[in-house]
Amino acid sequence: MSAQRRSLSTRSLADAIRSGEAGAVARTLTLIERRAPGVEEALADLYPGTGRAHVVGITGSPGSGKSTLVAALASQYRSEGRSVGVLAVDPSSVFTGGAILGDRIRMAALSGDAGVFIRSLATRGTLGGLSRAVLDSITVLDASGKDLIIIETVGVGQAEVDIISAAQTVAVVSVPGMGDDIQAIKAGLLEVADVHVVNKADRDGAHATVSELREMLRLTHRRPGQWNVPIQQTVATTGGGVEDLVAQFDAHLSWLADTGERERRARRNSETRIRWAVEEIILDRLKPGSPDFDWAVEKVTARRTDPHSAARKLIQQLG
Amino acid sequence: MSAQRRSLSTRSLADAIRSGEAGAVARTLTLIERRAPGVEEALADLYPGTGRAHVVGITGSPGSGKSTLVAALASQYRSEGRSVGVLAVDPSSVFTGGAILGDRIRMAALSGDAGVFIRSLATRGTLGGLSRAVLDSITVLDASGKDLIIIETVGVGQAEVDIISAAQTVAVVSVPGMGDDIQAIKAGLLEVADVHVVNKADRDGAHATVSELREMLRLTHRRPGQWNVPIQQTVATTGGGVEDLVAQFDAHLSWLADTGERERRARRNSETRIRWAVEEIILDRLKPGSPDFDWAVEKVTARRTDPHSAARKLIQQLG
Repeated sequence: MSAQRRSLSTRSLADAIRSGEAGAVARTLTLIERRAPGVEEALADLYPGTGRAHVVGITGSPGSGKSTLVAALASQYRSEGRSVGVLAVDPSSVFTGGAILGDRIRMAALSGDAGVFIRSLATRGTLGGLSRAVLDSITVLDASGKDLIIIETVGVGQAEVDIISAAQTVAVVSVPGMGDDIQAIKAGLLEVADVHVVNKADRDGAHATVSELREMLRLTHRRPGQWNVPIQQTVATTGGGVEDLVAQFDAHLSWLADTGERERRARRNSETRIRWAVEEIILDRLKPGSPDFDWAVEKVTARRTDPHSAARKLIQQLG
Repeated sequence: MSAQRRSLSTRSLADAIRSGEAGAVARTLTLIERRAPGVEEALADLYPGTGRAHVVGITGSPGSGKSTLVAALASQYRSEGRSVGVLAVDPSSVFTGGAILGDRIRMAALSGDAGVFIRSLATRGTLGGLSRAVLDSITVLDASGKDLIIIETVGVGQAEVDIISAAQTVAVVSVPGMGDDIQAIKAGLLEVADVHVVNKADRDGAHATVSELREMLRLTHRRPGQWNVPIQQTVATTGGGVEDLVAQFDAHLSWLADTGERERRARRNSETRIRWAVEEIILDRLKPGSPDFDWAVEKVTARRTDPHSAARKLIQQLG
């Protein structure tokens, strides 16, 4: 079985992904995480057939019930006959062990469903490496025919912001009574939120949190024709409000398409991906053992040239 | 005065730095932080005359008395007739307001001395940008004739590790009774430490901390001919142990030179600096508005090519 797997050519692996085979998807995501040779060819083969899925980013502090919400969202999409891929980029997430038993059971139930694919991505190696792995994994899930791709992250560092920028729709999750949470949103997440979710809305203080968010949104200058960011209350553990949340996501996607914003976001996403690919290719060539690089290092170490001049010369030689 | 400053050519700015003029050094460090046009030329001009200074990295958790220790070290070097440059890369540092009054007074006293140059570098923009600013600032201080350059950082993230890799000698500061501190050292700083400092050694528990560090060092496999990492106790507030610490730094520099390790570290440093310069030049060219880049973005967005193939083509055009 293992030998048979290895003998799969790039083309047939891509074909298997395009037919939606979960095994082929899982294998390719592992190859992506390892930056295995040949994976770029498979991704290049898959890329033209992508761009169909709706990519939704879900972010919020640990404790906001994000993972339970993602599980509830996946269930809702499934009940509407839509297929779902989940990429969880969060060390405290349900998928890697940080959440309550109820979530695990819920996800376990979902994971028996062929219409749902779940994968957790660990922060291994460089953060840049993780961001690239997430984007490439989106390409694979998209090519495999998933209607919806959910990226779950804790919304803090630059890597998470990079990752979330790949989403068409970004939902920021708050919970009642977490003052810090609102502070975090103020600090950086407000601008990226297309939908605000107040989860655990059956708790005391839900109305206060909604009012606070509404006030924050009121203070941001909204240009004419701009998307009117909704605040959706949910109780993820019971599924309350989740159907409405899905409707909000759908409405946002329609708005993106109607206004040309979908195209603009796609272009920005292309820019990021091209830059990352360039960096990756170049850093791969600038390794000890490459004659041009070794020569440059020798000259800079001997102070016969400076790093910047050496870099300019190396770039001329890259072409 | 301001107009006169601006009229200074690259050559005369570099000349002023080489004559050790503090004003020219300060101005150039500001230009570096702003990535001002023309600064690369000045750095290229200065680079051949560098490599003479001993670069010492001092790292440790907030609360370890790092800043006071740096001030005490600067005083000690000055009393031996050696000039000192300090680059503080730490938001909680004495130089940016996080420390006790005694430190401020001490540094204020030192800063009236032309043999000491002090600059704090804030985490502004990208972390990569900060690392580059630190390396370029070392070039300037080195060219200005400083015998010793101290880089002070809180030892946590990747940026700090990058920065500290520019040092020839790395001192990791612990204090008695901070269990977390030892954990942090275990987690990542043990490998980079050339000298361990137990500061506040007049406190209870100093012996326990020394023993714990000694045990950690004993457990790491030391190859024959390898540097024997010393553990130096200090009381930075009184200057106790600081003269011995300077002697340890000097001994380490001699060991580096005698074993060829100084050359090896210089080569590694050149590799890092060349890579960063390449990245910077290339990212500068991959901006919307550059025709090649715009064309690639258009093709990727339309899914007529994939990001990796577009990147390969762009690199061919860079040369």
